[in-house]
Amino acid sequence: MQTVRVELGDRAYPILIGRGLISKAESFLPYLGTPSSQSSPSSHASKVAAIVTNTTVAGWYLKPLSALLEASGVRVVEIILPDGEEHKHWQTLNRIHDALLEARCDRKVTLIALGGGVIGDLAGFAAATYQRGVPFIQVPTTLLAQVDSSVGGKTGINHALGKNMIGAFHQPRAVIADLATLDTLPERELKAGMAEVVKHGFIRDEAYVGFLEKNMSRLLAHDADALAHAIRRSVEIKAEIVAVDEREQGLRAVLNFGHTFGHGIEAAMGYGVWLHGEAVAAGMALAADLSQRMGLIDSAAVERVRALIAAAGLPVAPPRIEPARFIDLMTHDKKSSGGKVHYILLDAIGRAGVRGDVPDSLVLQTLAASPPV
Amino acid sequence: MQTVRVELGDRAYPILIGRGLISKAESFLPYLGTPSSQSSPSSHASKVAAIVTNTTVAGWYLKPLSALLEASGVRVVEIILPDGEEHKHWQTLNRIHDALLEARCDRKVTLIALGGGVIGDLAGFAAATYQRGVPFIQVPTTLLAQVDSSVGGKTGINHALGKNMIGAFHQPRAVIADLATLDTLPERELKAGMAEVVKHGFIRDEAYVGFLEKNMSRLLAHDADALAHAIRRSVEIKAEIVAVDEREQGLRAVLNFGHTFGHGIEAAMGYGVWLHGEAVAAGMALAADLSQRMGLIDSAAVERVRALIAAAGLPVAPPRIEPARFIDLMTHDKKSSGGKVHYILLDAIGRAGVRGDVPDSLVLQTLAASPPV
Repeated sequence: MQTVRVELGDRAYPILIGRGLISKAESFLPYLGTPSSQSSPSSHASKVAAIVTNTTVAGWYLKPLSALLEASGVRVVEIILPDGEEHKHWQTLNRIHDALLEARCDRKVTLIALGGGVIGDLAGFAAATYQRGVPFIQVPTTLLAQVDSSVGGKTGINHALGKNMIGAFHQPRAVIADLATLDTLPERELKAGMAEVVKHGFIRDEAYVGFLEKNMSRLLAHDADALAHAIRRSVEIKAEIVAVDEREQGLRAVLNFGHTFGHGIEAAMGYGVWLHGEAVAAGMALAADLSQRMGLIDSAAVERVRALIAAAGLPVAPPRIEPARFIDLMTHDKKSSGGKVHYILLDAIGRAGVRGDVPDSLVLQTLAASPPV
Repeated sequence: MQTVRVELGDRAYPILIGRGLISKAESFLPYLGTPSSQSSPSSHASKVAAIVTNTTVAGWYLKPLSALLEASGVRVVEIILPDGEEHKHWQTLNRIHDALLEARCDRKVTLIALGGGVIGDLAGFAAATYQRGVPFIQVPTTLLAQVDSSVGGKTGINHALGKNMIGAFHQPRAVIADLATLDTLPERELKAGMAEVVKHGFIRDEAYVGFLEKNMSRLLAHDADALAHAIRRSVEIKAEIVAVDEREQGLRAVLNFGHTFGHGIEAAMGYGVWLHGEAVAAGMALAADLSQRMGLIDSAAVERVRALIAAAGLPVAPPRIEPARFIDLMTHDKKSSGGKVHYILLDAIGRAGVRGDVPDSLVLQTLAASPPV
């Protein structure tokens, strides 16, 4: 097992990476139970965990995990939600709150988010808002969630007018990334997760881009050593950025490389038609093209971005979206500021920055130059 | 104008107390606008304020405030909600989010909660969760909100299974308590606010209890000097407690004196039938009786509690609720822990503490000894 620590003062937490972690009670027990409290003389009450998962993941991992925790004396509440991004909204969030209240969970309950990014966002936001905040543990079961969404404390739900518009920053007590869970991950989802992996290289570490260029076929073939290295390095990069800028006031915005275009694609297509990683992949290709038009990088760098995305089996062009509508959807994105879209562009392979001065005309050129898939 | 500061490190904020504050743009302008941001080179965009209020308060104060801010170059979005505790739920919260998105407000918007406790809780929770958190200003227009709910960062909504079950801690940037707004406050609501005023005395300051005993008739007659003193002293007591224990891990629980019984009353009657302050008043009388049964205070102290509550024109006994149901409703209250109800009891007039060891038999005696009103 390897551990990467996210340094956030009194909200610091570890990310555990290894094979078989969710089959050991010791992975969970230190992070369950009562926060320090002067007001409860009777803290001998047993620990309570509410496992939030979806119908798909439940079939694989819920019963073994429940049994494991119950054997350690933990009271377990199971909350099974429908599977899919289209359920990441108020009504599903309410189901978590309803279940917690029906099970009479108090502030000492710890939520366990067992699933991919949608489950992590929903369970994390439920934890942020249940009785004004209870602890939670992320147990990401997709590559995307392991390298990205489960690290950094962003939680939330979608709104008809935009993705992730309602939410909170709420840091988990721990992230438990079990490589074994990737064995059951569909091919398409593994590739989608790879979008965030290559993103971490593009924005922060050219050497890591080199590693990914050499090892992409091993990664897609589930090579254990290659995956362990990629997950660790991606998580280190994300943890480092989040530690500097927890609430996305500055540096953290670079993690949105590919996401402004990507959210536009997801909003245009309807959430869930393109996977998040697929939309981000096409978004990164567009952002690289735009970086060149802004004079920041040369065509060889753009080609390198596109080639690695393609090697990961991901799209390098968006679906057919009318350009004016595409731009309109992006101005609704929360990364926009004062109605002006802020783009994350590359200054080099391995270095990204935020630009608020990109003319729409160049964006239109980029969209025109990328034939839709 | 007087200022009381809530000391919360980088979340510290002032409470401004005075007459006519909401008629001056200077009361608001320092607290509007962009949080420090490294990522937005173009922060010359004008300030945006979204005023959240209800149909009743809007009639008195909305247009003048909007005009005042617009005259200072602030873009104003008006969000008018139905009036009443029965609307403090998901659907109303969603209306705020919908309006903010429809007006294309980004993270730089500042919400202004213009109204009583319900508006403060709703607008505060909307601010806590809109795009993962935007700033807000509390402009409490009831005595209850001025001395209690607008100070301390508690925000949230009700759930069918319990009051304030969903919410967040989100500190305002400032609280602007304008005494002039109490001129339009109905008599019954002034009295209900007085419940929290006397509570602050009971839990923390016997000398303040003495002041309230001497001046209750002046306070109920809207005497300006008496009200200004009471609001200031109540806010000081609350600010002091919140500064020590922002997230209710210990000391802050004493602010719930009267609230465990009170929430039981509100839940049993249906929210809004008894005003919050009325339920808390009866709850304090019950808690005082229970304190005596636990051997903590004598009957003279109980009588003093009841007399001051009665002098404020508030009930000293609960409505008719079947005792087993009353206790059941209290175990659903979030102040319960591991299924065990924690009661805030008086160790003396001016000193409260949390007790987790109260036998149900004594609670039943207290309920039996308080003939319902």
